[in-house]
Amino acid sequence: MANPPPASNIVPLKAQKPSLKPLMGLVAPGLLAVNRVIVDRMQSEVALIPELAGHLITGGGKRLRPMLTLGSAAALDYAGDRHHRLAAAVEFIHTATLLHDDVVDGSDLRRGRATANVIWGNEASVLVGDYLFSRAFELMVEDGSLKVLKILSRASAVIAEGEVAQLTAQRQVETSEDRYLSIIGAKTAVLFAAACQIAAVVAERPQPVEDALEAYGRNLGIAFQLVDDAIDYVSDSDTMGKDAGDDFRDGKVTLPVILAYARGDAAARRFWKRAMEGQANGPDELVEAIARLRETGAIADTLARARLYGSRALDALGILPPSAAREALSETVAFAIDRAY
Amino acid sequence: MANPPPASNIVPLKAQKPSLKPLMGLVAPGLLAVNRVIVDRMQSEVALIPELAGHLITGGGKRLRPMLTLGSAAALDYAGDRHHRLAAAVEFIHTATLLHDDVVDGSDLRRGRATANVIWGNEASVLVGDYLFSRAFELMVEDGSLKVLKILSRASAVIAEGEVAQLTAQRQVETSEDRYLSIIGAKTAVLFAAACQIAAVVAERPQPVEDALEAYGRNLGIAFQLVDDAIDYVSDSDTMGKDAGDDFRDGKVTLPVILAYARGDAAARRFWKRAMEGQANGPDELVEAIARLRETGAIADTLARARLYGSRALDALGILPPSAAREALSETVAFAIDRAY
Repeated sequence: MANPPPASNIVPLKAQKPSLKPLMGLVAPGLLAVNRVIVDRMQSEVALIPELAGHLITGGGKRLRPMLTLGSAAALDYAGDRHHRLAAAVEFIHTATLLHDDVVDGSDLRRGRATANVIWGNEASVLVGDYLFSRAFELMVEDGSLKVLKILSRASAVIAEGEVAQLTAQRQVETSEDRYLSIIGAKTAVLFAAACQIAAVVAERPQPVEDALEAYGRNLGIAFQLVDDAIDYVSDSDTMGKDAGDDFRDGKVTLPVILAYARGDAAARRFWKRAMEGQANGPDELVEAIARLRETGAIADTLARARLYGSRALDALGILPPSAAREALSETVAFAIDRAY
Repeated sequence: MANPPPASNIVPLKAQKPSLKPLMGLVAPGLLAVNRVIVDRMQSEVALIPELAGHLITGGGKRLRPMLTLGSAAALDYAGDRHHRLAAAVEFIHTATLLHDDVVDGSDLRRGRATANVIWGNEASVLVGDYLFSRAFELMVEDGSLKVLKILSRASAVIAEGEVAQLTAQRQVETSEDRYLSIIGAKTAVLFAAACQIAAVVAERPQPVEDALEAYGRNLGIAFQLVDDAIDYVSDSDTMGKDAGDDFRDGKVTLPVILAYARGDAAARRFWKRAMEGQANGPDELVEAIARLRETGAIADTLARARLYGSRALDALGILPPSAAREALSETVAFAIDRAY
């Protein structure tokens, strides 16, 4: 540890901070196997493919979704290795989505590095995304479970549908909270849910267990996204790999903005409308936006909703027998929420 | 028929022209069923999805790949209806590829109409392509054949790989004929091959029959592409739905250019290099290009190669019992070649 606790009787609060470490420790050996599949399957004779895919895949991602597959399998005492291949498939689907997302959003920074579309162009990002997506299905076909194929092909369709829905809601500050939750449910939460659920399928557990892990992943995914939304108004690029105000500058209508708009007077609504439509979204307006979010309680209430989804994720785990793996999945929820504080 | 032959003893040559009509007549009822699946499965609550997908899917495409699935099934006397769903899946994969292709190429015209990326933007085209691709896999999963899933997930990966390979070969006039054939083998021929092969899978025919239909589709696909390459230097937008010289203006290095470059002197090579790199590719240069292609025999030899692949496609059909369906598949090869004359 970089900063050991001071040698005194006062236990520093920091030491209690929830982290991903329990999950990471639990799944470390499995994650090595998953990484081997990932590196093996992103190869191609066409050199640009591993080059571009590798930039994103080996470039500092947390591998959160594969870790959830591995952690869920551990919580079910699954002893096989089918989930390694499937976790790699989930990561490929996620990576393909990120590549296409960055093209759609015109992003130039992800995880603190230049995006693939900036380095290699939109064309290559679109096509390598397609390649990874196809490779994901090849991996699933090799595994041979039609149930897993069904879960992940449906998840992929729902993700794409959610992305299109978000595109049509772009810059529309009057998006309702319900609509927004349904968009992030599709865009983000469905793959978290699928990543957890497929562990129950390979472990051949009964439907209620499958449903519980699906619910855990789904609610965790929504909590993660809502905390990300909040953090975008309080972060700096050193700690988060993204700049504060990215969503603001891009005119992304996230829950904090939806709440502040709904609660604002005419002047506030004019402010948000102009900002989200890109007419007034410079550094000064970002400072004003953060002040408005704080004074309407929009950040706090976004986080309150994240905690609600987080507690649903925790409750879903109740059906599983107590274990270190279940603890690790619980702490992952706490970690998701705590990042904002 | 719009133009009945004149009432005389002279048989007009036109009447002998091979066409898609035998195949279309053969598969008409099946194609209605396929279209129902297509229209049903491109729906979504997100209105932009059916709107954008419908523009391309119901916008004058020939449905050649679904017709090949249906025609192949007919040639095998298959009596079920599983191939309707799978033919729709093939068309979805094809449509997704076209949507992404047009984004990658920056195309503004396809089948004589504005491309989806021009009307709705690149972002929507990328995401709706992803949606259709996912829906294709959902259809295959519903069918439940892991063998079909394997064939089509591999085809999708090979297509994307071929597209990336083409992207890296872009504007490189020194691309070899072999490399070019391998690119179009991946980009175009693999889906033709898969469309035919899956008919043998659902009809539960032995491997040699499956292989024969795969070879038929693959060679037909290459012939189609080579004829398209030649036509691009002789067509007009009224007859082909694309302008002559599209490939030239886009700096697409196709077989005619590869042959003319290989056969040219220093001046010719300089001409092609500058043209493909976009430094000199205006209307005057297009006229010069066509002259150079003709005098080096590049167009004629591209078509000679197309005929070679066409005859391989015909030979592959030899394993099938004689039938009207086999005749229709044969005539489709003749049609593919004859379009250039």
